[in-house]
Amino acid sequence: MTLSSWNDTPTKQAILDYVAAVSDESSPDYVPPAERIAAFDNDGTLWVEQPAPAQTGFLFGKLVEQVKADPSLAAEEPYKAIITQDPVFMQAFAQQVPEAVIAFLKGVGKAWEGTTPEEYEAEVRAFLAASMHPRYGCPWTDLVYQPMLELFDLLRENGWRIFVCSGGGRDFMRVFSEDAWGIYREHVIGSAPEWGYEDGRLVRLNELHGNIALGPGKLEHIYARTGRTALFAGGNGDVDLDMLQEARFRLVVVHDDAEREYVVTAAAEKLLAAGEEGGWTMVSMKDDWKTIFKD
Amino acid sequence: MTLSSWNDTPTKQAILDYVAAVSDESSPDYVPPAERIAAFDNDGTLWVEQPAPAQTGFLFGKLVEQVKADPSLAAEEPYKAIITQDPVFMQAFAQQVPEAVIAFLKGVGKAWEGTTPEEYEAEVRAFLAASMHPRYGCPWTDLVYQPMLELFDLLRENGWRIFVCSGGGRDFMRVFSEDAWGIYREHVIGSAPEWGYEDGRLVRLNELHGNIALGPGKLEHIYARTGRTALFAGGNGDVDLDMLQEARFRLVVVHDDAEREYVVTAAAEKLLAAGEEGGWTMVSMKDDWKTIFKD
Repeated sequence: MTLSSWNDTPTKQAILDYVAAVSDESSPDYVPPAERIAAFDNDGTLWVEQPAPAQTGFLFGKLVEQVKADPSLAAEEPYKAIITQDPVFMQAFAQQVPEAVIAFLKGVGKAWEGTTPEEYEAEVRAFLAASMHPRYGCPWTDLVYQPMLELFDLLRENGWRIFVCSGGGRDFMRVFSEDAWGIYREHVIGSAPEWGYEDGRLVRLNELHGNIALGPGKLEHIYARTGRTALFAGGNGDVDLDMLQEARFRLVVVHDDAEREYVVTAAAEKLLAAGEEGGWTMVSMKDDWKTIFKD
Repeated sequence: MTLSSWNDTPTKQAILDYVAAVSDESSPDYVPPAERIAAFDNDGTLWVEQPAPAQTGFLFGKLVEQVKADPSLAAEEPYKAIITQDPVFMQAFAQQVPEAVIAFLKGVGKAWEGTTPEEYEAEVRAFLAASMHPRYGCPWTDLVYQPMLELFDLLRENGWRIFVCSGGGRDFMRVFSEDAWGIYREHVIGSAPEWGYEDGRLVRLNELHGNIALGPGKLEHIYARTGRTALFAGGNGDVDLDMLQEARFRLVVVHDDAEREYVVTAAAEKLLAAGEEGGWTMVSMKDDWKTIFKD
């Protein structure tokens, strides 16, 4: 059934109405199929982002391993901030402050230099299989929001193509995008290093491609990938604001459910204010979602 | 009808057999739907490449305009080579020799710096509407190969996603990809500049993204875009060799039809040799194609 994990609220109705209008040639909101592009953030929009994005554990674990192999690194950044759990850095990173993410990625670039796609993918799979969410005690991939998957179904049934555009790692997400979201790898947009073909094999280079997919970077990544801006965009943090501003339909996932999930406004203040002021579609996890997690 | 513009030759049968095997769970060639990725070169594989790729006229025309606006440029490269029709440069460019393409793109980067997507697209549309092929006297977009469009239909019917991966400009091709090929913009991979979000709008930067999609660059671009290598690849020139080598099914468009199209072996010698030696699927335009151009 359409959006069955959504309560019958004005939010659900607004989504149904807009999606119907886009397919209705007599509607002023009608849009030809080619332009029906939707883009969604990942952390906090498609799955739990608290207490820190899932990928954080993967990346920090890798850098800690690097320090174990070469203890002299412990005196250098970003290793030092991670080893000492520097609170300023940790908070900035959790909130995807671009400067913190970029500084961190310099360490990450070195860690995986020369890795093949198969090797990288195996590391991600091992992490996903072993890591448990500290509160829910289950793998992160079980913490995908069921209502969002149903929104994907609705959009697909109406001829939309769905992209995930996250500040997180493109190659990290691609490992689980097909199983967890039913979204082909090529529809996953995110921050990414360059990969180069050397000695007859593809390897990861210590070079970040262009920019990271945060803030205006999301628009740049979506345009580079699709040749368009997203008509329908969904997000939950300030880093998604630019992407939503350029969209026709703006969906904001509001973390207001302390019992079943989290209450979060940090690093979402600007988005929440813009959404309230602009009359965007504000999804209250508490009131609009019957179920939070996928079955 | 399936591949109706193809003659009933072993080439056609090889394609039909392979596509059927990929969908047949009992076949050793069976591949799950997610991995059914096909990639094709554009110039010479999907439409006429002679006497020079269509985009050449667009790019040269732009640089000539630049010289008209600022005659002092005529003494500098790449403007000088274009104004004087330097034969060495012209041949290297027509054959997509990476060095010639890169040198040229430096001039191109400057020409469109600061252009918005809408402005760039309008220029491409104006060019396509006005330019006529010197031999056929029709727009280039009428010179798409009908048999290749039918191959796209066959692949799509069997759950494949089709990408075009050309050394040519990604943003140039995207303007006509949906009308000419029935391929959404996001499935077009090619050489591309960076686009940046500045003062609230997306503009073209004078910066080539990463590398150009030629030779091993094709593999890098396909991986970056799709997270995979192409399972089925088609090309016609040496710049496609790496892409075909990494594919399971390799299709080479052989230009051997002087009457209806062209006879070309230049810049395809290595590919033709590898294809003959490896028993790849060599498509003779003369013998395998009943019709050349789309209706």
